[in-house]
Amino acid sequence: MDQALSHPHIISLAAGFTDNPSLPVEETREIVQELLADERLARPSLQYGSTLGDAALRRRTVDRIRDGDFAALKSTAEDAGGRLNESIYQPQSLQITHGSQQILYMLTEVLFDPGDIVLVEDPTYFVFLGMAQSHGLRCRGVRMTPEGIDVGHLETVLQSLRKAGELPRLKMLYLVSYSQNPSGVTTSLARKAEALRLLRSCEKHAGHTVYLLEDAAYRDLRFRGSDVASALVLPGAAKRVIYTSTYSKPFATGIRVGYGLMPAALGRVVTRIKGNHDFGTAHLLQRIVIRALESGRFDGHLTALQRRYGQKAAVMGRALREQCGDLLEWVEPSGGLYYWARLRGRGTSGPKSRLFKAALKEDVLYVPGALCYADDRTRLKPDNELRLSFGNASEEHIAEGIARLGRAIRSLRGR
Amino acid sequence: MDQALSHPHIISLAAGFTDNPSLPVEETREIVQELLADERLARPSLQYGSTLGDAALRRRTVDRIRDGDFAALKSTAEDAGGRLNESIYQPQSLQITHGSQQILYMLTEVLFDPGDIVLVEDPTYFVFLGMAQSHGLRCRGVRMTPEGIDVGHLETVLQSLRKAGELPRLKMLYLVSYSQNPSGVTTSLARKAEALRLLRSCEKHAGHTVYLLEDAAYRDLRFRGSDVASALVLPGAAKRVIYTSTYSKPFATGIRVGYGLMPAALGRVVTRIKGNHDFGTAHLLQRIVIRALESGRFDGHLTALQRRYGQKAAVMGRALREQCGDLLEWVEPSGGLYYWARLRGRGTSGPKSRLFKAALKEDVLYVPGALCYADDRTRLKPDNELRLSFGNASEEHIAEGIARLGRAIRSLRGR
Repeated sequence: MDQALSHPHIISLAAGFTDNPSLPVEETREIVQELLADERLARPSLQYGSTLGDAALRRRTVDRIRDGDFAALKSTAEDAGGRLNESIYQPQSLQITHGSQQILYMLTEVLFDPGDIVLVEDPTYFVFLGMAQSHGLRCRGVRMTPEGIDVGHLETVLQSLRKAGELPRLKMLYLVSYSQNPSGVTTSLARKAEALRLLRSCEKHAGHTVYLLEDAAYRDLRFRGSDVASALVLPGAAKRVIYTSTYSKPFATGIRVGYGLMPAALGRVVTRIKGNHDFGTAHLLQRIVIRALESGRFDGHLTALQRRYGQKAAVMGRALREQCGDLLEWVEPSGGLYYWARLRGRGTSGPKSRLFKAALKEDVLYVPGALCYADDRTRLKPDNELRLSFGNASEEHIAEGIARLGRAIRSLRGR
Repeated sequence: MDQALSHPHIISLAAGFTDNPSLPVEETREIVQELLADERLARPSLQYGSTLGDAALRRRTVDRIRDGDFAALKSTAEDAGGRLNESIYQPQSLQITHGSQQILYMLTEVLFDPGDIVLVEDPTYFVFLGMAQSHGLRCRGVRMTPEGIDVGHLETVLQSLRKAGELPRLKMLYLVSYSQNPSGVTTSLARKAEALRLLRSCEKHAGHTVYLLEDAAYRDLRFRGSDVASALVLPGAAKRVIYTSTYSKPFATGIRVGYGLMPAALGRVVTRIKGNHDFGTAHLLQRIVIRALESGRFDGHLTALQRRYGQKAAVMGRALREQCGDLLEWVEPSGGLYYWARLRGRGTSGPKSRLFKAALKEDVLYVPGALCYADDRTRLKPDNELRLSFGNASEEHIAEGIARLGRAIRSLRGR
């Protein structure tokens, strides 16, 4: 932010902002008109709702998750032991929040004491790391592969925790399972099944439930490939899987509505905390989302948005190949807002690196990859990666930003 | 809530909901139309804002607080040493939140460690007590008088904390200073000045700043009498006064926008916490409030709302005199949403009392006064008071609800 203000011509490939031109202006205008012109809907939309969230929105949301899981299970040949468990998709188990960030925050408050351990992916969503740190948690990183979490490494980490007598402090594995921020990786159901099995096998030594928190914030933003069923379909999910996601990124980020589906006992505690935070999410926003869903505008907009991000991703991919093919390596994402790139050869990308400064001099900004790794002293933290967002920048700026980045890298290698 | 669901004919004088028929349906419809029809405003309204809050809203908000304080100082003969300090009313010191509840929560997170002490009024806002309890705080109650906090008792409490060596654990005095929830009392500037002076005199022994948190949630909802300047005008306010309020209750509770104005160093920590909670309050809601303020609709609606609550308060006052004059005593509120009534003679009003059950049998619900007192074992907790809300119930239901309450009290005395 500071950097962007002091460099007015900067192209930011760093921000997690979403695409501006495609924001659903007309849809939202119509929706609010319809809501406030309807005698039965107008006043309730402007009054407090309940702490748990609007009943109609909770019903639609659990149905949506269930239908997604059902379709994903049906369409795949992979048999990872997933079976739809209808009793999980219940409106009373769903908490509506002010964006999905808030549900992550409240879960961190509820599940952890300072000094407790959370397992995260290497790399992971850096805001979660900041939140975990501010609550005094210890994070342990688990390696990633292109199919998602490295279950072999997960097993090794769990074994080392067991040997150190630390399993009683382990509370949760945090998995950003769809088009992950930052790596773009989608975790296969088989990986999720194996991860959940490993967590369950630790519970006896832990002395309590070890939760799998599946953050599906980018599930809707897939522009290629097939959907994957959530961990909710796995054996034992009812007691230990928490599924969080958001309506903000797939519709409009100015309308903050997120949610979490979780075991009932945990849900009751989270709802009490939500009451203390803010009594419940602004009702007008929830009603806008309900109407967007009911009227088909949500899905219509989402289809267009997926296409748009697919195009923008293609623009960034082409620019990377043309400008940085010899400088960086990356995997094409199939959804989300990011490319995750690694410097070929030597060199670092951190906020104090020569590259970061050279990029600033070229007026382009990226997120240094090291920020996406937990402070976990049991392994080295890679410092040669970059998160490059195609979410907010225009196609022209994406291409120009990557060209500038290429010049910045080259300027250092030329020396 | 449970009670209301299982008694469909119940009249609730308990809920803190606001008046339904007067909700600004047309105003909000026009505002959203104008916002989303304006090329410059539409997309930013639907995009993420900043964590601190919209700059235009912050500017308008600090100006509004300053103008209110200026006018209140000018119109009063009382000289409590208040002087407008322009340097306090700065947009960068204001944090926008998802309702004012959220700023109270974040301040509790930031300022306190478990076991720390907060001073509260006897009685006080019961949701704050729940929040304090969930953070493991110790609450000490300070008596109230019709002019606000009893400064003599405050001095006694501070002395006893000093003797017990507990001042280092004292962090804050929480004051609901305008048309207090639940008592209806507005604290005079002289009382606030004396309270602040007492807090300052403790800081040497405390070893840190002792904050005065002025919760002005009901300041706009005054329907009689004059406004009082906030504690921001008092000597030493810049370092230790936190002022919180909301746009939700005076406009529409479905639009949750609150704020806190506080010393800069504290504000930076709060903003970091806000980033962890939710990155910032939904931008669409902030833009609706800005336009409501700019267009004059906010103040137009507020004037009508004040008149409406004044009428509803008058209806409740008349019903109380006619139905409960011999059973209850109370002071007429000059703003807010509540009557605070005390049983004449013997009898208790708690959730397990015969009165509460008799009232339920008559299909009327109130908030037992004891819920509004901190768990403070250094004094007895009164258990013969009732909070009666005229916010949400219709005028007809207010009159009928009070009649039922009268019958319930009489049914017990008849025995």
